[in-house]
Parts: sequence; C-alpha cells; structure tokens
Amino acid sequence: MIRISPLIDRLIDAFQMLPGVGPKWATRMTLYVLQHNREGGETLARSLSAAVAEVKRCRECRTLCETELCAACANPRRDADTLCVVESPADVIAIEQAGGYSGRYFVLHGRLSPIEGVGPSELGLVDFGARVRVRGIREVILATNPTVEGEATAHYIVEALSGMDVRVSRIAHGVPLGGELEYIDGGTIAHALHGRRTID
Amino acid sequence: MIRISPLIDRLIDAFQMLPGVGPKWATRMTLYVLQHNREGGETLARSLSAAVAEVKRCRECRTLCETELCAACANPRRDADTLCVVESPADVIAIEQAGGYSGRYFVLHGRLSPIEGVGPSELGLVDFGARVRVRGIREVILATNPTVEGEATAHYIVEALSGMDVRVSRIAHGVPLGGELEYIDGGTIAHALHGRRTID
Repeated sequence: MIRISPLIDRLIDAFQMLPGVGPKWATRMTLYVLQHNREGGETLARSLSAAVAEVKRCRECRTLCETELCAACANPRRDADTLCVVESPADVIAIEQAGGYSGRYFVLHGRLSPIEGVGPSELGLVDFGARVRVRGIREVILATNPTVEGEATAHYIVEALSGMDVRVSRIAHGVPLGGELEYIDGGTIAHALHGRRTID
Repeated sequence: MIRISPLIDRLIDAFQMLPGVGPKWATRMTLYVLQHNREGGETLARSLSAAVAEVKRCRECRTLCETELCAACANPRRDADTLCVVESPADVIAIEQAGGYSGRYFVLHGRLSPIEGVGPSELGLVDFGARVRVRGIREVILATNPTVEGEATAHYIVEALSGMDVRVSRIAHGVPLGGELEYIDGGTIAHALHGRRTID
C-alpha cells in the first residue's frame, strides 16, 4: 500500500480489522470520513469507545448488553419457562427479527470445539442442568447451527438435561421457504427427507 | 431493526455512516468488535478521533495530511515543475500506486458544478495561473475524470493558463489495458478512436 501520512495510514490500517474490509475499502472509508463526514467519524469513534468499554454479557442469558440484565431477560412479559439456546448474539437478533418467539435465550458464544479449546465451561454449560431446574424451565429449544460442532453442542446439552422433566427440542432443518429443491445442496435435502413429518 | 441495547444500537447506527455499509453489515461489524476484537475497536476509535481532529489539507497541493506539507510536496526529489491536477486525494493514491509519476499534485476536492454551488474558489482555482507562474511549473497534467463536470473543469484550467508559457496536457482516455473491445462501452470506444495516435 501507498503510505499517505501517519494518521491516515493508521486509520486505513485500523479499518481493516473490521470483517470483510480490505485495503481498498479501508482507504475509501478513511477518505470518505476525512473529506465528507468528520462528524460521523467522531460519532463512530465515541460510539466504539463507549460500547467497547461498557458492553458486557447479560448475567442471565449471556447475550451482549451494557446492563445487568438484557432487554429480553428483564421483560416480565416474555415466557420465562422457554429457553432457546443459540451460538451467538447475532442468532438472537435473527430470531427476534423473524418475530414469533416470546421465550428467553441462552447464548453460548461459540460451540464445542476441542481443537480450539472450547469446552462446556467456555460456553457457560457447566451448571446448565441446575440452571434449567432452578429457573423452572419447561422447554429448551436447541438452535445451534447444523454444523458438526453445532450438532455436537446440541447433543451435549441433550445429555446434560437427560432424566430431567424438561422438553428438549431442536429447530427444524430443511428446505428454506422460497427455496427450490433444484438449487438446494444435498445435505439440506437429506436433512429435509430425514426430518419429514406425517401429514394428518 | 431490532433494538438490542442503547450502546449497541448506537454503534450499529454509527457504522452505517460509512460508505456501502447497511444495517445488516453494521450489525455484523458491531458484534464482531464486541465479541472478538475489542482491542481493534479501541484502536479504530482512537485512530478515527486523531485523524478527524488533526488531518487537514496540504498548504501547497491541498491533499489530505496532518502536516503543513504533504509527503509529495515536501520531497525535494520529486519534479517541482510538473503538476498533476486531480479531483480527489483518492486519485493521488491511485496514481501513486500505479507508479511512474514523479511530479507533484494539485487536488481540487471536487469538480466545477454550478448546480451544486461548486465554483473555481471551492476548487482552489482562483489564483491557479499565478500559482503555476510563481512555482515555475512547466507542465500541468489534467487528470480530472472524463465526466461532463470533469471535462468542464479541465477546460476551465486550460482557459486559465492560456497565453502562459506552460504545457497543458490531458491524460489519455481510451480502452483500458486488458480491456476487450467487445465489452467496452461505446463512449470509451469513441474516445479511443478520436484520440488515436499515428504510429511512426
């Protein structure tokens, strides 16, 4: 890369830590801020500092928020007896955006992966059975991703809850709405066939 | 958009002031920083604040830098008698990256556009003839873009320098290297034909 001036170079470098941002785009962002939107740049700097310093995990569900309890956990109108287990806060956002779910969440911040050194304690699963019992939860919905690690994580939770009086379910995996069989990968089709339901 | 928490929402909003960043991607950037790279986020915040506060325009060529003179203007080994006029600092970077140009620059920060209220004074062109004379410049290369406004701006500069003992040139516009005639737009082909050069 061409070096321009120390401060500009440093900003171009800093932008590149963002996901999907390469040198060209980082340069474009830098010049945009400096030429057209310094106020926006200042606001972004302040927002970043504040969020990095103050956002932590919800005491209850482990999602990201700056308060002790996140909005979902603090909301008395949500079903406290249904718990949806997801891998990341992005999954919480996706489910909330879909609408229709009114229970609570539990965010793993990852998936079991012995190779990467991620075990039950990293995912907050050590006392998961006790948590489910104490909170009086009646259904645990496993919404980890349909990858090898996601399935292993779901399986671990099923084991952890075995023998307890709680319904454990897995979200359905199959052909997405609007998807055409012709264009769907084989793994998904196999899943969809395996998970078929009797029409009655 | 789903509201998550005030600080997170504010950061998602702030990221969206960047060019090409919509709500989905801003959310992804926000979660990435908070989950995986808080240090990078802190660095970006500091770099932004510093650049926004301290980057100004080079006294001589008007490009962006935090010093009185930019690196090109302060470099005594660059040809001081050749001046390349461009619309933006991004153009300077593009030419530097291409390599091979060793003269100096003059950055307009825009193009003549009466509709948008951009006249010669906004582009630093009011005393351009005097500047060229005083600096002893022998060639002015016009590298404004081949748009209506870019051409009008180039034309204005040609007029401003008429009668002066200075060579005024325009960069060539035509078929890009590696371009195939078949896929080139008609305007470019017309330009390439019009700008043809005798092979001798």
